[in-house]
Amino acid sequence: MIDPVFLDTPLYRCEALEPGLGCAVSIKLETANPVRSFKARGTELVASLLPDDGPRAVVCASAGNLGQALAWSGRGRGLDVTVVASRHATVAKLDRIRALGARLELVDGDHELARERAAAIARHDGIRLVEDSLDIETCEGAATIGLELVEDLADTVPPFDAVLIALGGGAMATGVGHVVKALAPGVEVICVQPLGAPAMTRSWRTRRVVTTDSADTIADGVAGRCPIPAVLDDLLLVADDAVLVQESSIIAGMRMLLDHAGLVVEPSAALGVAAILEDPDRFAGRHVVTIVCGSNVDVDAYHRWVGTAP
Amino acid sequence: MIDPVFLDTPLYRCEALEPGLGCAVSIKLETANPVRSFKARGTELVASLLPDDGPRAVVCASAGNLGQALAWSGRGRGLDVTVVASRHATVAKLDRIRALGARLELVDGDHELARERAAAIARHDGIRLVEDSLDIETCEGAATIGLELVEDLADTVPPFDAVLIALGGGAMATGVGHVVKALAPGVEVICVQPLGAPAMTRSWRTRRVVTTDSADTIADGVAGRCPIPAVLDDLLLVADDAVLVQESSIIAGMRMLLDHAGLVVEPSAALGVAAILEDPDRFAGRHVVTIVCGSNVDVDAYHRWVGTAP
Repeated sequence: MIDPVFLDTPLYRCEALEPGLGCAVSIKLETANPVRSFKARGTELVASLLPDDGPRAVVCASAGNLGQALAWSGRGRGLDVTVVASRHATVAKLDRIRALGARLELVDGDHELARERAAAIARHDGIRLVEDSLDIETCEGAATIGLELVEDLADTVPPFDAVLIALGGGAMATGVGHVVKALAPGVEVICVQPLGAPAMTRSWRTRRVVTTDSADTIADGVAGRCPIPAVLDDLLLVADDAVLVQESSIIAGMRMLLDHAGLVVEPSAALGVAAILEDPDRFAGRHVVTIVCGSNVDVDAYHRWVGTAP
Repeated sequence: MIDPVFLDTPLYRCEALEPGLGCAVSIKLETANPVRSFKARGTELVASLLPDDGPRAVVCASAGNLGQALAWSGRGRGLDVTVVASRHATVAKLDRIRALGARLELVDGDHELARERAAAIARHDGIRLVEDSLDIETCEGAATIGLELVEDLADTVPPFDAVLIALGGGAMATGVGHVVKALAPGVEVICVQPLGAPAMTRSWRTRRVVTTDSADTIADGVAGRCPIPAVLDDLLLVADDAVLVQESSIIAGMRMLLDHAGLVVEPSAALGVAAILEDPDRFAGRHVVTIVCGSNVDVDAYHRWVGTAP
């Protein structure tokens, strides 16, 4: 059901990164596709599974990547797509959502307010609400990354023994985590979240939902404040660890991926490298896969972050 | 014989590029692998086919990408690899060649002098000389890009009707060109070379080898001066056109690929976009594939070119 353009993404060792990180590093690259993030794996499922005899319309809240992916998947299937986003979302993401023909509604607030508004639209219009991380398609879509990783595990030398996954709402962490723990339980599943948006990590650590009053991070894709209880339950089953990283480490990770891997990535996609930078002893001598999950950035902000000026 | 990490590379529409180019554009991405260029497709063949009962050593001249790829392919098979390069080659490429364990010899001259020196080493040591574009493995390796393109042709909507190929020595152009003209003859094969290094294009136009006294381009990967006669013969069979582009267009192409595709590319990889920029009427309304063939750049030079300062 998923367009092949989103599947079988590159997995490759990046030795140029390794002297700076002290371990073997492989990149699972989710940016070389029409929406530049992994999110379409899930929206392809959503759009494919929408009943033919019901409303051919969907709505979601999004920091930008889910909305872009849903717009792409919906356009190809004749769906009417509405995306609700924060007015402060990354401009490049909003532009792409519009360009893909979706209706974009902006709210004066953060992602949690966008979620409320999307739910209200769904109720009012009687259409499908796509809830990232809660709706199983969004997790199963991400889980296909895990299937690909496990399939390639035997071919990696040495075999990788940890996967670093950006943690936001939890779709990628629970999806990939479930597959990895089921099929390759020896591989450590490590979720990485910004210290400035730590709600899910704190929830995982205390085994109950912890919300925060604000989120303050450049990693817009993972800047939630209100973890979904059912997602936390799943995460407790599959994550071996959840760690928090500083903004400066995220930026250092973005810069390393630019300088040594030639990759422009959005902040969320640098969380894995940031985790290695903050705790090199933990990873020393190991082989770590980091999922580079998106590359949708505002170019000016990107240059500001990584220390280059347009 | 080719490690799968170099095969089945992403091919995807990049709609964000399209308003600026006036046509549908798909990217065939050859940079998401351990050597960040397409060259390992060929060196994998070279290294696999080296006789077990002869010298387990190879030498090549390289602007950097072939050398890096040969070093990678040779390392995994226990080969002794020597790379000869110009002292003025891209530092990042030379660093990677050394890091991959090859012996690197620098010459005080350009790529043509490196070719002479590599040939002398091969004669003296009685080892295999890998001649890019002349040795059939280097063309056949590149040709696997063509096989993948043709295989995906039926899935592209609308089907692509032109392929833009960076033209240097000619391995990629003849390899991809042969496959495309054999299996999908309706697809136009367009080679693109810098105006500052036009030897092969001039040779193709006049149907006889034309050399130049100098090469002046930032596109180091295609900066040859002395086309190989046998390669020209092949190119005359398969290229529908060969065009020359200005340096400013190459830079504009690099900038567009950064801004709208999130891709850091080396100058040679932007030749296709440059060709569209210089002749938009030719491509208007069509669907064009451009092969993004490498991303090995010196970061400082890259920022200087695309107008960002470190």
